Amino acid sequence: MEQKARVLIDCKDEKGLVYKISKVFYERDLNIDSNREFVDKEQGKFFMRTVVTGDFDLAELELALGAISPSDAHIRIITPKDKHIVLMVTKESHALGDILIRHAEGALGAKIECIISNRSTLQSLVERFNIPFFYVPVEGLEREEHERKMMEILAKFHFDYIVLAKYMRILTSVFVQAYTQKIINIHHSFLPAFIGANPYKQAFDRGVKIIGATAHYVTDDLDEGPIIAQDVIPVNHRLTWKDMQNAGRDGEKVVLSRALTLVLSDRVFVNGNKTIIF
Amino acid sequence: MEQKARVLIDCKDEKGLVYKISKVFYERDLNIDSNREFVDKEQGKFFMRTVVTGDFDLAELELALGAISPSDAHIRIITPKDKHIVLMVTKESHALGDILIRHAEGALGAKIECIISNRSTLQSLVERFNIPFFYVPVEGLEREEHERKMMEILAKFHFDYIVLAKYMRILTSVFVQAYTQKIINIHHSFLPAFIGANPYKQAFDRGVKIIGATAHYVTDDLDEGPIIAQDVIPVNHRLTWKDMQNAGRDGEKVVLSRALTLVLSDRVFVNGNKTIIF
Amino acid sequence: MEQKARVLIDCKDEKGLVYKISKVFYERDLNIDSNREFVDKEQGKFFMRTVVTGDFDLAELELALGAISPSDAHIRIITPKDKHIVLMVTKESHALGDILIRHAEGALGAKIECIISNRSTLQSLVERFNIPFFYVPVEGLEREEHERKMMEILAKFHFDYIVLAKYMRILTSVFVQAYTQKIINIHHSFLPAFIGANPYKQAFDRGVKIIGATAHYVTDDLDEGPIIAQDVIPVNHRLTWKDMQNAGRDGEKVVLSRALTLVLSDRVFVNGNKTIIF
Amino acid sequence: MEQKARVLIDCKDEKGLVYKISKVFYERDLNIDSNREFVDKEQGKFFMRTVVTGDFDLAELELALGAISPSDAHIRIITPKDKHIVLMVTKESHALGDILIRHAEGALGAKIECIISNRSTLQSLVERFNIPFFYVPVEGLEREEHERKMMEILAKFHFDYIVLAKYMRILTSVFVQAYTQKIINIHHSFLPAFIGANPYKQAFDRGVKIIGATAHYVTDDLDEGPIIAQDVIPVNHRLTWKDMQNAGRDGEKVVLSRALTLVLSDRVFVNGNKTIIF
Repeated sequence: MEQKARVLIDCKDEKGLVYKISKVFYERDLNIDSNREFVDKEQGKFFMRTVVTGDFDLAELELALGAISPSDAHIRIITPKDKHIVLMVTKESHALGDILIRHAEGALGAKIECIISNRSTLQSLVERFNIPFFYVPVEGLEREEHERKMMEILAKFHFDYIVLAKYMRILTSVFVQAYTQKIINIHHSFLPAFIGANPYKQAFDRGVKIIGATAHYVTDDLDEGPIIAQDVIPVNHRLTWKDMQNAGRDGEKVVLSRALTLVLSDRVFVNGNKTIIF
Repeated sequence: MEQKARVLIDCKDEKGLVYKISKVFYERDLNIDSNREFVDKEQGKFFMRTVVTGDFDLAELELALGAISPSDAHIRIITPKDKHIVLMVTKESHALGDILIRHAEGALGAKIECIISNRSTLQSLVERFNIPFFYVPVEGLEREEHERKMMEILAKFHFDYIVLAKYMRILTSVFVQAYTQKIINIHHSFLPAFIGANPYKQAFDRGVKIIGATAHYVTDDLDEGPIIAQDVIPVNHRLTWKDMQNAGRDGEKVVLSRALTLVLSDRVFVNGNKTIIF
Repeated sequence: MEQKARVLIDCKDEKGLVYKISKVFYERDLNIDSNREFVDKEQGKFFMRTVVTGDFDLAELELALGAISPSDAHIRIITPKDKHIVLMVTKESHALGDILIRHAEGALGAKIECIISNRSTLQSLVERFNIPFFYVPVEGLEREEHERKMMEILAKFHFDYIVLAKYMRILTSVFVQAYTQKIINIHHSFLPAFIGANPYKQAFDRGVKIIGATAHYVTDDLDEGPIIAQDVIPVNHRLTWKDMQNAGRDGEKVVLSRALTLVLSDRVFVNGNKTIIF
Repeated sequence: MEQKARVLIDCKDEKGLVYKISKVFYERDLNIDSNREFVDKEQGKFFMRTVVTGDFDLAELELALGAISPSDAHIRIITPKDKHIVLMVTKESHALGDILIRHAEGALGAKIECIISNRSTLQSLVERFNIPFFYVPVEGLEREEHERKMMEILAKFHFDYIVLAKYMRILTSVFVQAYTQKIINIHHSFLPAFIGANPYKQAFDRGVKIIGATAHYVTDDLDEGPIIAQDVIPVNHRLTWKDMQNAGRDGEKVVLSRALTLVLSDRVFVNGNKTIIF
């Protein structure tokens, strides 16, 4: 029976890896539809993403690849089924709305399981799309307690990624480490410029001629996680910082959209504090 | 009483126009918040957009400006109130959805009066937002008759612009001339490249390294109207033409969004087959 | 006799300035070829650049404009004659070479008076173009003494701007203040990202997906002067930091070229730590 | 002895090619430094570029690869030595100058053998760089005769590519076919927009908001050859077509530079009327 799989392998670099891996595919009569490979020479690490088609037994294929790979190899064989995601938002609707529209037209490549917010602002928008919305107010709660309530909700769902679509509270280390390499954020500046609060105001005060947006994995270090996608838009002296904020929103949603497309099609490897994108 | 107005004047060029116009404002003790002026020397035409604040009588101000301007002058004094628009769509939701989200959050700068479509595909999406949706099927109708039915619906609404948010049928000269300089279209190529049907397929076949989108006023000449905004995105050999179509959608909605912001804030003059944008 | 002048005025904002200034032009029968005006409401400052043609006496016009302007007004009437510039370089040739080529073809809009360097590397390139090259070695000199030698050379030339075309030493406050608003630098990052040494290495280490270049006026605060022009180029995981450096050079020279064109055509006002560009 | 080579293979697609090719490398104990592969499914064609290091005999390696490849395979094993190029120019110096500067600093990746022109305008610039310049006037010559004279000069040099750095005469089919896939041109528009004469004037007349440049292989069909690189820059109503031409020059030289870097590092496959770029 003809199947398709994305095979992702990363491990320490060794001579002959492309040969050995392609031999496994060849011996099983699998077609290589596309293949990208990268060696990080500085770190001595090997990364490869191959799309194969043919008739294979997933467990057997995984075993065979494991047998010829270095012992530290991280092997993923992903057969095409929709990803599942959870969104976290605060009160701005542009990034969320963009995702909802693509979800509604079947163009997102993922099913949205639920949306969690520390504000009720976006509830009515979300409910137009018949997606569960959980409002978890912060009032009277310690940060840890607030996150614990959100984690209780998250525990009820199966999901591949948590997407912070303009969630405007800083997450604790406990929360972040509970979902390692699973949280994706959109930051409203071309990082590492304008780290921290109100980047558009910072950009206005500095008098820059370009502003930007950055989608990245969330790690313990605020605004320091591996960058997935970035883009910029030109600005000029006629814009107030509010104008910049408005102008920046189109950039934010487009960059987040681009990052999600890459992540959901398994094109992104995390390599230390960087990403490799095939 | 403090008021604000955008004053737009275009006429044949003459010496002293900036002086005479600013004198009218000065004598009425109006503040000039911003001012942009352009002379098309080739055509001998003058264009000026001034934002004034102060206490004025609109009719009196118009009279005074008319008195000092050349006889062909086209003078508009626009006080801030929301514009009204009508959308026409076919079956793609990305451009429409982007406008609906911005409308819902109050960021569009216009009230959507209704949405007309030759297909029923987008009805359920539109109805989530409680906006009247009129489905006007084309089956069994001559083109003229189909348009007449749409014009009957349009006649019931007051609107400033008709926005073609991926309306995929060619409009007749009768329709276009009924709404001169009021119809705005998004075309899925960086015009004038790839005029006509299926520009992404054309772009794929030509092997270009950039694709784009163009927002323009609709005139009798298909894809030849005055261009308001354009942008491009890079592509490569790995994309099929379907991939290009998907990649292009973000560009289309962003370019249309940018064009609408310009038009709805009265920053666009039409100058023959071109635009002047302040 | 028909003359042309760029009139630049900046002062505190007041009601009626556009009227009063355009009245001065009108009374002298001057044509306004183009006009741009901007009010910085936050700072209460007015900026205007007007190109006028007609028959005028420069001193009389300056007096007349001074009479109707606020007492703090900074008025410049610039008649078209080539600017004069001096270049300072170290050892990279891309930014210098670009300027030399445009100078040789008469497209720079300025005459290069001389080129000063702390290295001899570029001497032979410069001499191909018959421009005086002064090699001022740093060996055995205190920073202040080195700069004093360069200032002695500079004192022999008349120039409007000093262009740092990849001059890789930090200038002291004494030097910078001797040429206020006259020193233009190209920095190899999209400031304020990657301030300081080796921005490409920093960009590589951070794993960004865009790198950039920034042209700015030099002030006492290193890399903090008013930004004139910026641009970015996309990068990916396949580039080493040396590759980024090479890729960045095209960006550097193009951004510097764009900034020089703006400055040399008197389109740039410095407004505190920002620029206004007409 | 450690050697390095770029191995480029294109042939009809077959199952097992990656395996068979990497086996050849593996059996010779060669390291794969980088590898990119692409299958054009529509055409059933396979493309692969691999950089290998190790101790190999070039002829033996070529034989071994030929033995396992389909009979139509086009195999190139390129060891690092500088490419050689010839330039053809008319009278604009920006593209030529950019190449000369990079050549002078050793950053071009190719040795310029000579420069041929139908005008004498650029002779003095070229001679500053001690490169042979051949002026072949067109006066009184049939097009074929003019080209024959240039071909006589070309015959005296060994070169990999002819770069048309703003050579403004159309080449005949005879000339083009004498140097198949060896002629690279920079066209001053984002092809296929504004094919033919004076694209900036065409762009001005059409009122576009972006202009561009395209580097492509020259084929018999004017402006229709495989595109290597493209880029655009924004323009507005304030630019005359001469201004657009000036603004476009930076784009032209940067796009040509980028295309040359790709071609000279053997990253470009021609695939019918398109390119594949690794």
